[in-house]
Amino acid sequence: MNTSENYGTIFPKGERAPADYFIGTVWIKNLVPADDTLNTVIANVVFEAGARNNWHTHAGGQILIATAGIGYYQEKGKPIRLMRAGDVVKILPGVLHWHGASRDSEFTHIAINPNIQKGVVEWLDRVSDEEYNSIL
Amino acid sequence: MNTSENYGTIFPKGERAPADYFIGTVWIKNLVPADDTLNTVIANVVFEAGARNNWHTHAGGQILIATAGIGYYQEKGKPIRLMRAGDVVKILPGVLHWHGASRDSEFTHIAINPNIQKGVVEWLDRVSDEEYNSIL
Repeated sequence: MNTSENYGTIFPKGERAPADYFIGTVWIKNLVPADDTLNTVIANVVFEAGARNNWHTHAGGQILIATAGIGYYQEKGKPIRLMRAGDVVKILPGVLHWHGASRDSEFTHIAINPNIQKGVVEWLDRVSDEEYNSIL
Repeated sequence: MNTSENYGTIFPKGERAPADYFIGTVWIKNLVPADDTLNTVIANVVFEAGARNNWHTHAGGQILIATAGIGYYQEKGKPIRLMRAGDVVKILPGVLHWHGASRDSEFTHIAINPNIQKGVVEWLDRVSDEEYNSIL
């Protein structure tokens, strides 16, 4: 039986996310690879507690659907927002942001990148502990 | 606690789907409405056992992510495929198809429509009981 704790397991856990763009342990399962017909990349992402990605932008925008645990989402210059299962975040093209797990809970989301003919992702600076802990 | 039976409840149940395009009881919760920036519409759809949509096409294509229960998916001229939690179906632009619950189980999927600048959906004929029961 699935529970909220193992919902992420409706998908295989996938591969470790690259350390160049992520802090902590993050698992990525690609669900829809890039093509030039659907122009959409979709992945299931599991962040262990404390893990997060670097600051980054998407030229075609992104939609996050939180499915389990408690996560953080932040756009540059704004406070960190909590994300819980069922929350949906729309990220407009070019908006600088990061996302990840909260300090004490794993977090899983589906990440949907449409309009990839405009680009998928541009990675920037790491999210410092000071930035991450600004949730306080 | 969420279980596989109530996973769909991480989203509100939403509105009854229009009877013109659906047979049986179907609930649609719109997660991302149409816009001209993300060009993507996303909805969570809950089909009660036996319910299905009409034959239809998407000019921009569609991706289905099954999250709970057991469903059916069929493209014109091909056999019905079973869908279970974690299954992902990519539907290319213009491909005639339908989806819905299996006869004895509710079914929930997330429906992602990218490239809506090309169109969202064109509804066609109802799925007859003979077509629906061709899973036998």
